[in-house]
Amino acid sequence: MATPEDEKFMRLAVKEAYRGKGKTLPNPAVGAVIVKDGKVISTGYHERAGLPHAESIAIDRAGERAKGATLYVTLEPCNHYGRTPPCSEKIIKAGIKRVVVGVRDPNPVASGGIERLRKAGIEVEVGVLKKKCFELIDDFLVNIKEKRPFVSLKLASTLDGLIADKRGNSKWITSEESRKLVHKLRSYHNAVMVGIGTVLKDDPLLNVRYFKVNSQPKAIVVDRDLKIPVNCRLIKERAEELIIVTAQESLLSYKANILKDLGVKILPVSVSGSELNLLETLRALRESFGIFSIMCEGGAKLAWNLLKAGLIDKYHLFYAPKILGGSEGIPMFQGSFGDISGALKLKTFSIKPVNEDIHIKLYTPKLYNTYMEL
Amino acid sequence: MATPEDEKFMRLAVKEAYRGKGKTLPNPAVGAVIVKDGKVISTGYHERAGLPHAESIAIDRAGERAKGATLYVTLEPCNHYGRTPPCSEKIIKAGIKRVVVGVRDPNPVASGGIERLRKAGIEVEVGVLKKKCFELIDDFLVNIKEKRPFVSLKLASTLDGLIADKRGNSKWITSEESRKLVHKLRSYHNAVMVGIGTVLKDDPLLNVRYFKVNSQPKAIVVDRDLKIPVNCRLIKERAEELIIVTAQESLLSYKANILKDLGVKILPVSVSGSELNLLETLRALRESFGIFSIMCEGGAKLAWNLLKAGLIDKYHLFYAPKILGGSEGIPMFQGSFGDISGALKLKTFSIKPVNEDIHIKLYTPKLYNTYMEL
Repeated sequence: MATPEDEKFMRLAVKEAYRGKGKTLPNPAVGAVIVKDGKVISTGYHERAGLPHAESIAIDRAGERAKGATLYVTLEPCNHYGRTPPCSEKIIKAGIKRVVVGVRDPNPVASGGIERLRKAGIEVEVGVLKKKCFELIDDFLVNIKEKRPFVSLKLASTLDGLIADKRGNSKWITSEESRKLVHKLRSYHNAVMVGIGTVLKDDPLLNVRYFKVNSQPKAIVVDRDLKIPVNCRLIKERAEELIIVTAQESLLSYKANILKDLGVKILPVSVSGSELNLLETLRALRESFGIFSIMCEGGAKLAWNLLKAGLIDKYHLFYAPKILGGSEGIPMFQGSFGDISGALKLKTFSIKPVNEDIHIKLYTPKLYNTYMEL
Repeated sequence: MATPEDEKFMRLAVKEAYRGKGKTLPNPAVGAVIVKDGKVISTGYHERAGLPHAESIAIDRAGERAKGATLYVTLEPCNHYGRTPPCSEKIIKAGIKRVVVGVRDPNPVASGGIERLRKAGIEVEVGVLKKKCFELIDDFLVNIKEKRPFVSLKLASTLDGLIADKRGNSKWITSEESRKLVHKLRSYHNAVMVGIGTVLKDDPLLNVRYFKVNSQPKAIVVDRDLKIPVNCRLIKERAEELIIVTAQESLLSYKANILKDLGVKILPVSVSGSELNLLETLRALRESFGIFSIMCEGGAKLAWNLLKAGLIDKYHLFYAPKILGGSEGIPMFQGSFGDISGALKLKTFSIKPVNEDIHIKLYTPKLYNTYMEL
């Protein structure tokens, strides 16, 4: 039986895991805490692929004290020889008496850990703070299942669904508190992506500024015709971290050469209709640049094209308690499914007030079902 | 000190009060519960103006058993001779030992009850479930302060702020659970109002169907040019409960006479610019028809006109977890403040999931501040 104590220590494990969120990909973010007599003995988190697993670190840190202790781990311990030996064996060897698991590992290669532990006589509790623990691995799951990067879409909007006024002004719809949270979310992704329209309008930096981070997410601009101004802040301040996705034809242009000389990476993709092929874009970003998770922050056109292509896995919608009126202004998505019956259906994952704003997280039904089945 | 028990019994008092919500106006909806030794002895609610107050009913029902008991009442007991003697005196006389009050009475005429009780040596606790208790009297407060009916706006929308698709189809954006809740909300108002566009498009009945009610809210259609079809369901099934707001010029028309013969009430108001004067409309609905609270259910044009005139006190926004795309379709409000800086700012009162949908309640800053100050 899970106790309120269990939730308390699992919360700590989740917090640990978030220190690696985004950096561990293509591995999942995992956190672990070892507790004895109600006291935390050690903690650990997975820092990045190739480095030890969270539970392994926590056990090493605990040493002899791990004997008879309880291990809290956000994800089912692995049961296979990957780059590291199976955590299940290490847990048994360390003399851990009880293991509390946040969420089962849906990856058939690594799973089986819970069963192995139980066979060894260890008491195993599963599903404590399952929701938070699932969210930790959403990006990992999409990479495994879809063989492409995880894509979340963040939009800040008025209650009536407008992300900017008629002049394109979006500063500031939501509160500073929400903007801080967005910077936190950026830090959990490998890259932040926008369309060229947003660059021309807002001249954004797309980096994490409200918090110190060891490494900044890359910036991606989807820019079919290479309209990006060479004096924009992304190029002046972040050229080395910038990837421009453009049409194959643009690659040989004079502008492309200038951009390359400035240190900008250029990713050419094919054009279908008049639009860049976005699935190809995502796959190439993963293969060529090691980008496993992307937060798209608009604009309305790119958001619509991604949505239409079925390439958005998670939605972060921030609503400010404001009404602008919808006769003018820029809606969340530039495009339409036409009929109500054709509207895209999502699954609400959480609803939270952020200061005056409201933060709604939604998943595609597919990803949500994975959560429900675990 | 308030206890969890206090919240439990106050919740019951709130439930009682809702039996009168909407019907008591211009009096507030109030509920009362008398408890002794942890057991409910009696309950009461204010049914309508002129009838006894909630606490008075509960005390009468308790009789001798009220001695030494605790009284839970959602609103501060009155301290003045109105149509009924002061409840404060009755409470003292009944030998009540402790009084738990949900929210203070902001009406200077009736307040002073808490002080009077304390002077008589009764222990008084104030502010238990204040939020729920405030919501019970929001309509009452607007009537007192603004000398016009309370107006709430209900809209059902996609996440991207669309209330219908390009063909005007809005059936069904939100889930049945939300629609049931809307019928409950209708029953808490004296009237349900829509613009003529909604009648032409949806042919609605605007009554309460999911629940049994003793009396239906009136139906109000804002219809400047008397375009309402005589064979619409509102006229065929609810002519006697229907009020059509129209321009003074329309009053002498042939159509007006037909409508009157069918039993429909017609309210002529002046036109400013090309729009009906909505403040005049609200005041006349109160003076001539005894309508103290109205729920407007759209469409986008009437919603915008009310909003622009500063006549919406409360917003019930229901978001379905769907995206339609904003290039086509009908936005919540047909109109715009132009710049982001000019957007109307509201105060979020509550956020609740309703099945798959999200129900957000907001107040104007003015009404919200009244709540904060109580």
